[in-house]
Amino acid sequence: MNSEVQALLSSGVTLTDAALERLLPSATTEPHSIHRAMRHSTFAGGKRLRPILCMEAARMVAGTGQIPEGAADLGAAIEMAHTYSLIHDDLPALDNDDLRRGQPTCHVAFGEAIAILAGDALQNLAFQVISNLPAPPATIVAILHDFALAIGTGVGTPSALPPGMIGGQVMDIEGEGHKPTPELVERIHRAKTGALITTSIVCGGFLGLATRMGVPSIPPFADGWDADSSRSPDIIAALRTFGESAGLAFQIVDDILDMTQTSAELGKTAGKDTASDKATWPAVYGIEQSKKDAADLIADGFAALEPFGPAATPLKSLAQYLVDRTH
Amino acid sequence: MNSEVQALLSSGVTLTDAALERLLPSATTEPHSIHRAMRHSTFAGGKRLRPILCMEAARMVAGTGQIPEGAADLGAAIEMAHTYSLIHDDLPALDNDDLRRGQPTCHVAFGEAIAILAGDALQNLAFQVISNLPAPPATIVAILHDFALAIGTGVGTPSALPPGMIGGQVMDIEGEGHKPTPELVERIHRAKTGALITTSIVCGGFLGLATRMGVPSIPPFADGWDADSSRSPDIIAALRTFGESAGLAFQIVDDILDMTQTSAELGKTAGKDTASDKATWPAVYGIEQSKKDAADLIADGFAALEPFGPAATPLKSLAQYLVDRTH
Repeated sequence: MNSEVQALLSSGVTLTDAALERLLPSATTEPHSIHRAMRHSTFAGGKRLRPILCMEAARMVAGTGQIPEGAADLGAAIEMAHTYSLIHDDLPALDNDDLRRGQPTCHVAFGEAIAILAGDALQNLAFQVISNLPAPPATIVAILHDFALAIGTGVGTPSALPPGMIGGQVMDIEGEGHKPTPELVERIHRAKTGALITTSIVCGGFLGLATRMGVPSIPPFADGWDADSSRSPDIIAALRTFGESAGLAFQIVDDILDMTQTSAELGKTAGKDTASDKATWPAVYGIEQSKKDAADLIADGFAALEPFGPAATPLKSLAQYLVDRTH
Repeated sequence: MNSEVQALLSSGVTLTDAALERLLPSATTEPHSIHRAMRHSTFAGGKRLRPILCMEAARMVAGTGQIPEGAADLGAAIEMAHTYSLIHDDLPALDNDDLRRGQPTCHVAFGEAIAILAGDALQNLAFQVISNLPAPPATIVAILHDFALAIGTGVGTPSALPPGMIGGQVMDIEGEGHKPTPELVERIHRAKTGALITTSIVCGGFLGLATRMGVPSIPPFADGWDADSSRSPDIIAALRTFGESAGLAFQIVDDILDMTQTSAELGKTAGKDTASDKATWPAVYGIEQSKKDAADLIADGFAALEPFGPAATPLKSLAQYLVDRTH
């Protein structure tokens, strides 16, 4: 990992954790048990990749060189949604996992009832944080809309897009025990993992556009793209293409790591996907083809970012890290 | 029940069900199982009280005599949130109920995993519907903010207000097996039931204000209140007071009915509150005092609506029905 990416990740974790610390209820706020449970799972050592992608997309689009106001809060909201999905995924009725990021899962530490409600509360708090973003109301509504679609089951999603995260969770459950087809694996990955990663980048872009429009002196990107109304849809579309490619690549690499790493290296139970006959990319294509597919997807993502010129370098470095990582 | 209330309830159910039918994914949309589960619990014969209160609050504030555009969708979103909370409340790890509104509960019909995810998806879809409301972005953001606070655990809630619905669920669980105190019962009821009923009325008011501001020819309410910026907070505050009183009265009556009705009359397991030593109003105050408290609360609610003049008659009739009902 080069030092530029290391610095991005390190400062991104710091910013995200500070926002989460500020936005989550303290462990001494009544009712205690759920707030302790929400903190337990949120501060269990996540890599904060989604918030970091969100903040860097916002910075790139804003054009000020700075991470725009509110982007850390938006990233924290997305991390809350990610954490809620992990808490519910780990429940006995779903994946029945006792260990996550090297820690006892939420229901192991706090019981099933509180774990279910802590997941519910994190989902809800994510939306509450979005309602408070320091951004124009139209920007908040655009973020709300894209974020809700990304979490959902595909209702109201344009047919070209995969269902959202919950839709992916359901397809994953329904697919267990069947031989996975290439089409189904791709659909599940794009929904269960890809949709939330994509919305992290797209919503960061919405926030960046709002900042950019407030600073008329910022020159357009290399090819003339700017935040005026006629070109901003192109900017969002490019971010979406990048996010979809990076999100799928990320999950393919996750599948590879699950097959090739130990539980200690992963901080969660390794080999579970294979044991439960889960739909994974290597199960369909083998390890070598999977590595090639991940690399090709990252190249597609890079191409989508070309119009942003040199401002896209940090996002590209992060995407490269997603496929090069070893845990 | 007088014929005016009967007509309000009947047309309100029709409008709500039509909106839910349109907004929920069809049972044949992939992935099928979760969409069938979402519909199973949403269309299990609910009284639609929250959507009806929402639509009538919107109508009263709008001043056009009509239910404003979007109010049925907003009501449907609130009903989705209510349904999600019931699905999760009924789970084995929480109340472990097999029967709800005379039907098998979601996890009995579809399994625990799908029930958990169906609840998650209904919560999310409620927010997605709010993002699509035909209202100015600032109105959508105001609705989003109040609605999210009402569902949550009290984070960001002004200290004068009770925590939201999930906070109430947690306090309810934590309180089981202990002798309930009057203060705790009131806090749980205001959070678990009152907050969602209150936001139904308040958010209806936000939508009504947006409509009213678009029609300058509408005369002010009897006492001069209008939708201009200086008086609209008074309008929302009055709706909140009404909602808090009506919501608490509603739950007190629910507690009384749980003790005095059979399961067949209620369409759910009667006497469960007493059996599990749940915090209820009659357990603290007895049946007769509980009836008096509910009536007093409704009188407080009526007083809060006085400034709206005759336009408040439908909301008052609905509140009266909430305490007079027998199931």
